Amino acid sequence: MRLTILGCHSATPRTNTNPTSQVLELKNHMFLIDCGEGTQVELRRHKIKFSRIKHIFISHLHGDHYFGLVGLVSTFRLLSRENELHIYGPKGIKEVITLQLKLSDSWTNYPLIFHELQSKESQLIFEDDKVEVHTIPLKHRIYTNGFLFKEKIGERKLDINAVQKANIDKAYFRKLKQGADVFSENGKLIKNNAVTLDPNPPKSYAYCSDTAYDESIVPIIKNTDVLYHESTFLNVNEDLCDLTKHSTAEQAATIARKADVKTLILGHYSTRYNGYDLFKKEAKQVFDNVLLAQDGRSFEFS
Amino acid sequence: MRLTILGCHSATPRTNTNPTSQVLELKNHMFLIDCGEGTQVELRRHKIKFSRIKHIFISHLHGDHYFGLVGLVSTFRLLSRENELHIYGPKGIKEVITLQLKLSDSWTNYPLIFHELQSKESQLIFEDDKVEVHTIPLKHRIYTNGFLFKEKIGERKLDINAVQKANIDKAYFRKLKQGADVFSENGKLIKNNAVTLDPNPPKSYAYCSDTAYDESIVPIIKNTDVLYHESTFLNVNEDLCDLTKHSTAEQAATIARKADVKTLILGHYSTRYNGYDLFKKEAKQVFDNVLLAQDGRSFEFS
Repeated sequence: MRLTILGCHSATPRTNTNPTSQVLELKNHMFLIDCGEGTQVELRRHKIKFSRIKHIFISHLHGDHYFGLVGLVSTFRLLSRENELHIYGPKGIKEVITLQLKLSDSWTNYPLIFHELQSKESQLIFEDDKVEVHTIPLKHRIYTNGFLFKEKIGERKLDINAVQKANIDKAYFRKLKQGADVFSENGKLIKNNAVTLDPNPPKSYAYCSDTAYDESIVPIIKNTDVLYHESTFLNVNEDLCDLTKHSTAEQAATIARKADVKTLILGHYSTRYNGYDLFKKEAKQVFDNVLLAQDGRSFEFS
Repeated sequence: MRLTILGCHSATPRTNTNPTSQVLELKNHMFLIDCGEGTQVELRRHKIKFSRIKHIFISHLHGDHYFGLVGLVSTFRLLSRENELHIYGPKGIKEVITLQLKLSDSWTNYPLIFHELQSKESQLIFEDDKVEVHTIPLKHRIYTNGFLFKEKIGERKLDINAVQKANIDKAYFRKLKQGADVFSENGKLIKNNAVTLDPNPPKSYAYCSDTAYDESIVPIIKNTDVLYHESTFLNVNEDLCDLTKHSTAEQAATIARKADVKTLILGHYSTRYNGYDLFKKEAKQVFDNVLLAQDGRSFEFS
């Protein structure tokens, strides 16, 4: 699991700060999460192959989270993309993108599939044999979802020494990985857990931006490996949280502690502060394992 | 008259090339012409004060000419702009911008005034006491206008020595500048052209992008000081012009020659070529005074 932060600042793009966008690599997927203005340039800068992006998740329709989407959709067309592109986002996203394609008289030459969201409950919105994605309803000024990305429990791993000693034919390996008991070459029943090991624990990533402090998300993100939680403000500006429906670094850390996550990543910083160390310092009063998102930074979670 | 090229490349933004946008300073105006994705960052990079931009002209609704507009409109809001903003562009531009403002539940706190264009004839779309702006209907895949910016003829200039010699009271200076004859202190009629000089010749700038070769624009831009004419292709790819409704550098130069402009600026280069010197070389076969637009380059015309 690898997370690359293309942008992690609130409000509008500047010469030295990018609005929100990130890429999550998980089980051969490359999920794009939010897509502020300029995201396509950041993707190029990080040499991320456009064709690997098949699913884009948009948290909400404030410009700093999606004004780069229509440009990316258009560029895919110019690059003669053929693969499906799935876009998950609030109701309205289809109208705004298709209106712009219509006005430019340039419909995509690849299948563009919208999955519009309007539920206020957590939903399963994507699933294949390896991964699930659920929404995390957030509390912001407009309808907003975070996203929970979860690996499914993988296959059991063969204990090669034990398998050889037990004299099991290769034809049974598939069944063993799926957890079944099998017979050895000489007809003896072999219990699965005698020759296999537990699979790697499935990894999970919760993306929560933008949101006011909201404990109702805790059960949804409980025990997640990595939580990205917005921290627009420091404690000194806590009064602005109520007005703008954003969080402080300390509030983000409180959510991380209550949800028993392993790692907290802070981001969506207001540009009013100089430097980021104070965000980390304030969060660490409450939760120990805190990392700071930075434009261009990658995190590897193995 | 000063022209700053924020971006002059066709298609989509890259790490080293910007899509189309330029700023024309003329008689205290700062006109923004087209607004590709990332324009607001380029404005900041060039330290152009956002509050000075009051009129934005959008040639057509292909993304590389206006996907940065909604972000700029939103940033103006965040900066608590109060001045009117006038946007001139093809019919549809109001719907696409207002839809995005509606979905983000953040209407502008300043007056946002759209001037939607749909005429196929050249129109006067802006005028004050010093400047006029006319559309230049272009021939592209979708409805497109170029824009002709013209200073009005200024006031006559006083020939101070002659005025003093003729013994004219200061109270008459205004009338003299406006071209009237006046009486001297001792009652003698003074002919205007005996004590005044011709005003500076008014400057003009024609912006023509995107367009196929189209001689019907020649009468509109006749004798313009500076013509920016797109040159997406070199002669080797002339066959693409018909398909895409773009021009070669040589075609741009032919328009410049037929219209008797003083200076031609080339731009809107396809990114398929390495370097720009060939554009200049091909244009100079036909027209001598050729300049090359480059992202970040400023031209001063005095």
